[in-house]
Amino acid sequence: MKQSLYLEDLSIGAKFRAGPVTVSSDDIKRFASEFDPQAFHLDEEAAKASIFRGLVASGWHTAALTMKLLVGGGMPFADGAVGAGGEFEWPRPVRSGDSLTVESEIVDIAPSRSRKDRGVVKLRTVTYNQNGEAVQILTSKIIVFSRAARDRTEASP
Amino acid sequence: MKQSLYLEDLSIGAKFRAGPVTVSSDDIKRFASEFDPQAFHLDEEAAKASIFRGLVASGWHTAALTMKLLVGGGMPFADGAVGAGGEFEWPRPVRSGDSLTVESEIVDIAPSRSRKDRGVVKLRTVTYNQNGEAVQILTSKIIVFSRAARDRTEASP
Repeated sequence: MKQSLYLEDLSIGAKFRAGPVTVSSDDIKRFASEFDPQAFHLDEEAAKASIFRGLVASGWHTAALTMKLLVGGGMPFADGAVGAGGEFEWPRPVRSGDSLTVESEIVDIAPSRSRKDRGVVKLRTVTYNQNGEAVQILTSKIIVFSRAARDRTEASP
Repeated sequence: MKQSLYLEDLSIGAKFRAGPVTVSSDDIKRFASEFDPQAFHLDEEAAKASIFRGLVASGWHTAALTMKLLVGGGMPFADGAVGAGGEFEWPRPVRSGDSLTVESEIVDIAPSRSRKDRGVVKLRTVTYNQNGEAVQILTSKIIVFSRAARDRTEASP
């Protein structure tokens, strides 16, 4: 069963895991065709001549796949995960056939001063390939709601 | 004609613009179905009851559309734009029918100490909707190649 955690349920150091999701060369090319049409994301031969020495996924594809894993259990917050911003690193590219998993850790929790029904959680999410190598390190600020917010919504007409 | 700038051609303060690209509700739902299946990205009715009060694009969809505009002229670097990481904010969501443009500015240029054929350019990219409101502020570190790197590649067997 998927967890649904409210702000009150969270603590610094809590960890969540999800995955794997496997990426094909067709997936890589389809995403790149729409959003990042550069030769090293679109064509194996051209990619061999690039600094990557082979086809690699767009970093934004890696980010999108990470979000898929976060929504699928790597960030089990109730009432949705609303991102406000963050920082990211792509230490290594994702390649065709890679199988990705995420490990998230809550590194900070800041209750909102202006709105008592929510807080901002800082979540550090590392996306790993099948060799245990980090392909993305994301630290994101997520708005998480309290159980009180839910109860008020359900009580409203 | 699309520009193709090498490291030697760049200066701090240089600005680039691209767009627009328009986002439909079908685009929003298709991206979300694959990568961010949360109710406020998938279903108009459910979205009305959310904090967004209507259907909104995944932040990662906004990021991907920004990359599309960067590749299309908002970041006219030769031999591809290889991102190493960065920081982002999503001050406002993208909604169905929004028309996005980007404005990028070079805010720093650091020649690589270990590899003379490249440098790291810090690019600040603001993505605007049709009302001139910022929907994403991205500061990214991009590996940019020198003309010398190109000449060496072309000379190699």
